[in-house]
Amino acid sequence: MTTDAQPTPAPPATPAPGPSREGVADALELLGLVAQLEHTAFVRLAADSAIAPTVEQRLALSRFAAAAVERRDRVIARIEELGADAATTLQPFDDVLDEFDARTPPSSWWERLLKAYVGYGVADDFCRLAAQGLDERSRAVVLDVLDDASHAELAVAELDAAGAQDDALSSRLALWGRRLVGEALSVVQRLVAQRPGLARLARAGAEPEAAAADQTVATDVQASTNVPTKVFGELTAQHTRRMGRLGLTP
Amino acid sequence: MTTDAQPTPAPPATPAPGPSREGVADALELLGLVAQLEHTAFVRLAADSAIAPTVEQRLALSRFAAAAVERRDRVIARIEELGADAATTLQPFDDVLDEFDARTPPSSWWERLLKAYVGYGVADDFCRLAAQGLDERSRAVVLDVLDDASHAELAVAELDAAGAQDDALSSRLALWGRRLVGEALSVVQRLVAQRPGLARLARAGAEPEAAAADQTVATDVQASTNVPTKVFGELTAQHTRRMGRLGLTP
Repeated sequence: MTTDAQPTPAPPATPAPGPSREGVADALELLGLVAQLEHTAFVRLAADSAIAPTVEQRLALSRFAAAAVERRDRVIARIEELGADAATTLQPFDDVLDEFDARTPPSSWWERLLKAYVGYGVADDFCRLAAQGLDERSRAVVLDVLDDASHAELAVAELDAAGAQDDALSSRLALWGRRLVGEALSVVQRLVAQRPGLARLARAGAEPEAAAADQTVATDVQASTNVPTKVFGELTAQHTRRMGRLGLTP
Repeated sequence: MTTDAQPTPAPPATPAPGPSREGVADALELLGLVAQLEHTAFVRLAADSAIAPTVEQRLALSRFAAAAVERRDRVIARIEELGADAATTLQPFDDVLDEFDARTPPSSWWERLLKAYVGYGVADDFCRLAAQGLDERSRAVVLDVLDDASHAELAVAELDAAGAQDDALSSRLALWGRRLVGEALSVVQRLVAQRPGLARLARAGAEPEAAAADQTVATDVQASTNVPTKVFGELTAQHTRRMGRLGLTP
């Protein structure tokens, strides 16, 4: 979007068009977040694999864990293409889900599954939205990686089967889902408040026309921290759809 | 070895030559053990990744963990080629290292590293030796998988660097290594006592001439449970070499 905004009659003697310097800094915030989320997914899935009740589940979960490492490393490859160091770029997001985890201890295997599905669902939706503000190549990497997050399938299949046979479980999980989405949305709120780059990308993603018209958006901190309500509206709508897929009242 | 023992003038109308029925049962014992050891390596490496002090180590260890899943799945592919179910084949080895783990709680990061290096080293050497008794294709899979166990490199590099600067650490680790190898060898002893298939393969691996001369070896339980001292001699020699690589007195 920023690279092909207008025709350039005489292209300057630079390599292939890439993001601007501010664009790179913002992109690294989002890439660092996505990579860290995938790493956290790996840690969680590996822990699930170690305690899963059957060998089949252990095998399946370990494969999901390995796939999360592979996805994280695709994002890291892009981080390194942009000339940044992987560890430094991931570090700021090291504890991104710690408070969410501390505030929402699951009390059963089902609550644990739903938590992963809802928690990562909201985080992934936010990243998908903010990815619209990225340079083309970074955006392609992020969207590819998020589309591959197949561990959601396991959660959906298991939760769907369990809930269909148990009304009491369904209503407990519906309640749990409402708690989870509230906590997940406040993670996103904190993130955009603390990370102006993420805020700018989310704004560009939610209001592409406004961002395209305003070429100074990447350096205009005042405007960028004002993340439109549209972002949270979109995240809530996606959550509602997600709970619907499980047959749970959102 | 069993497949090409003698020329067959008119090949029977069967598919490509494979192991005999007894050969398959024995092969599945070893393949199940190798797959379970790789799975256990995944669980351990993932747990190490979650607690490692730096982001760089966390990234490196998670990649080793993912590689262990990939190696395990190569063995599982062979298990399924032989017509067996993966979960059923791995299940008997589910707790193979539990007692070893319980008896050797490491008291530092270095002891933890050395434990993995020595514990998996002895187990891998045993599997490598027993693999000599397998049909050609299973043997190739097992040897490939064991050769790829790159997580040992990290242990060697870190332990070598740490020990070179600290004589007291070196002698503590040398002592720890002796304890570990004793416990690891008793794991192997228990395994061959409980699993006649593994015992037969280990015997065939250690004494190929005897096994080749005695074509009834695969069904001769009496002979097979008598695992030659040569096996344990070989495992001890490999351990001595391994400690030597670390500059530790074996």
